[in-house]
Amino acid sequence: MAFGHQRLESRRLLLREISKGGRIPRIDLAERTGISRATVTAVTADLLKGGLIEEIPRDPEAEDSARGRPKIDLKISGNAHLVAGLKVSGHSISFVLMDFEGADIETHEEALPNSTMTPVGLADAIARGLDALAAKVDGSVADLSGLGVGLAGLVQADTGLVHWSPSLTQRNVNLHDVLSARLGLPVFADNDANLVAMAELTFGLGRDHSDFIVITIESGVGMGLVLGGQIYRGTRGCGAEFGHTKINFEGALCRCGQRGCLEAYVADYALVRDASSVLDIDPKGSTAEAVAQVLAAARAGHGAARNVVDRAGRMFAVGLANLVNVFDPQLIILAGEQMQFDHLYADAVIDEMRKSIVQVDKPPPRVEIHKWGNLMWARGAAAYALEFVQDIAVESLDHAR
Amino acid sequence: MAFGHQRLESRRLLLREISKGGRIPRIDLAERTGISRATVTAVTADLLKGGLIEEIPRDPEAEDSARGRPKIDLKISGNAHLVAGLKVSGHSISFVLMDFEGADIETHEEALPNSTMTPVGLADAIARGLDALAAKVDGSVADLSGLGVGLAGLVQADTGLVHWSPSLTQRNVNLHDVLSARLGLPVFADNDANLVAMAELTFGLGRDHSDFIVITIESGVGMGLVLGGQIYRGTRGCGAEFGHTKINFEGALCRCGQRGCLEAYVADYALVRDASSVLDIDPKGSTAEAVAQVLAAARAGHGAARNVVDRAGRMFAVGLANLVNVFDPQLIILAGEQMQFDHLYADAVIDEMRKSIVQVDKPPPRVEIHKWGNLMWARGAAAYALEFVQDIAVESLDHAR
Repeated sequence: MAFGHQRLESRRLLLREISKGGRIPRIDLAERTGISRATVTAVTADLLKGGLIEEIPRDPEAEDSARGRPKIDLKISGNAHLVAGLKVSGHSISFVLMDFEGADIETHEEALPNSTMTPVGLADAIARGLDALAAKVDGSVADLSGLGVGLAGLVQADTGLVHWSPSLTQRNVNLHDVLSARLGLPVFADNDANLVAMAELTFGLGRDHSDFIVITIESGVGMGLVLGGQIYRGTRGCGAEFGHTKINFEGALCRCGQRGCLEAYVADYALVRDASSVLDIDPKGSTAEAVAQVLAAARAGHGAARNVVDRAGRMFAVGLANLVNVFDPQLIILAGEQMQFDHLYADAVIDEMRKSIVQVDKPPPRVEIHKWGNLMWARGAAAYALEFVQDIAVESLDHAR
Repeated sequence: MAFGHQRLESRRLLLREISKGGRIPRIDLAERTGISRATVTAVTADLLKGGLIEEIPRDPEAEDSARGRPKIDLKISGNAHLVAGLKVSGHSISFVLMDFEGADIETHEEALPNSTMTPVGLADAIARGLDALAAKVDGSVADLSGLGVGLAGLVQADTGLVHWSPSLTQRNVNLHDVLSARLGLPVFADNDANLVAMAELTFGLGRDHSDFIVITIESGVGMGLVLGGQIYRGTRGCGAEFGHTKINFEGALCRCGQRGCLEAYVADYALVRDASSVLDIDPKGSTAEAVAQVLAAARAGHGAARNVVDRAGRMFAVGLANLVNVFDPQLIILAGEQMQFDHLYADAVIDEMRKSIVQVDKPPPRVEIHKWGNLMWARGAAAYALEFVQDIAVESLDHAR
């Protein structure tokens, strides 16, 4: 029925707006959404009755609390639902438990024996980690209303189909199906860089921006795009493949099998490969150790090592410039945790990017560097799940009437 | 007043929907827009009274005319307003006169003595051309409700500021101001490739798509992006600079002063420059003649000329692949008119693009080749102006009440 559908939409919209607002009076909800005051009153009554939101007295210290402003704010009921978010990395899975208000409740780090797993192996590790996470708050996985999953690779977010991921031994795995069946709860998977973009949009540096690019720097480079306040995912779920844009025609061989990709110059393996002809790198050591050796040699003044590292920075700058030329964003966020890639965050790289974009008499986009740990990725995954769980909660409310 | 604002929004929305629908009954308007039937009836009465739309009997032959369907359709009144669109090219300005329904009424081609003009010189040429266009229908420029202007370069569409254009001798010219003052009518300028994207979205191959990329091929390459059914313009109005994305690190010098840009390999001047060391090119001839000579030599089996042309095609393919990797569009439209760039439309180029994108077990985006003349650019400009004129018409209606 048309009316029922509109009511559902209003509930969704108002719940999101309350979630975004933190604490917000009804009158502001009407103003921000364009929904009439009468409808706001009716819909928020439904949400209150369903336990999804609650009323709290307005902080009398708030700067706009004077001049006849309403004395009651609405906020999300933190206890209404619990969600978890996780990020699969090379050697561990990071988990966060989040309440319905988006507050972190608990975290957990689950070590992984292998960086590449079968779908069942990954599901087992996730189930173990979730149990451990829930146990920390004397709960169980059954208390969760949803799980957000971030992993590297090509993930079609709407279906949960993982075309390819460095964490999985198989291609074309439907992670929604595998994990929902194993865990008995709704699962929402996405490319990890998209979830970082989600975290920046929800909690981070992108909160006040509608169009920005998040570049993640780990062993490779990823990209999340926010356009018009939404994650842009492309039409087949395989966009935002920044690391495999070609910046050097028929250049260095990439692990993807093609030539001239950005990753073939800036990824960890690329640095080591390039430096291996001039440095004596231990073939038995890890890639991280080898990268550390290259960077140390560069810092110590080894000319060829310096050349390797500088070129990676210039290649990265050109890759960023291409994105600016195409998207003209307000803001670029370079997000990552690993100090081993400090050379990519360098001022010289940002300067080079600015020189490589189309020159107009306007300032270039702002570049912000945001360093944080695996928890941020997991929080992005939880925030992603939270959006769906909000919608599910609103729908169940409707059926309960 | 909130109600007045909503009424204005409903009028805008319904006028657009009628414009899109061609001929549409009220009941379908309510369904498509989610606006209640009562409001649709009230708002369309306003639009009818203001002369912006008219009622026509439903075609009894229409396949859905049976089963108690309404017998009356609404359509835009073609005569309500006239707009013009123009595209500035190297040697001429193409004009189209369009009615309020989007139908072409007349066209005109105004020759230009120089390809680069002062702002006043350009305004003079546009005024001459508009007079000639209007004279063809025994009218005058005063009959026009708006003018859409497309030109190459960096144009900030919202303000009309042209940061730079190959058609202008000056940088940072506010074309809205210059032309509105000269012509006495509202002017809406945009980058020409955006207007081609607008034409594809409104009349062309993009009609049924929400996310697609239009690549224009002239003496350089341009790009228009449609994301979520809207032209994406970036935040400073300088996005979509496909021709200046770098695809060959520190490669060939581009006219923009930087190295490795796509245009430095595929633009007309780049082909001639590359071939000039192996072919005897007449330095007094035009660039178009020189390009024709290079292409003829390649077709005749001249190895080095073939190499030049093939490389341009491969570079173009890599540039396109980068866009696919970043945007993952449903559709790429290669749009242009000049047969001299047939080598860029070649099957081999499309195949090369498909090999250079991230490989997933899904078909790559469709590529459509759409060849048309300058009129299509001008029609895009007129369609762009039409959108604004619709809004202005709806607003004046309000003031008249």
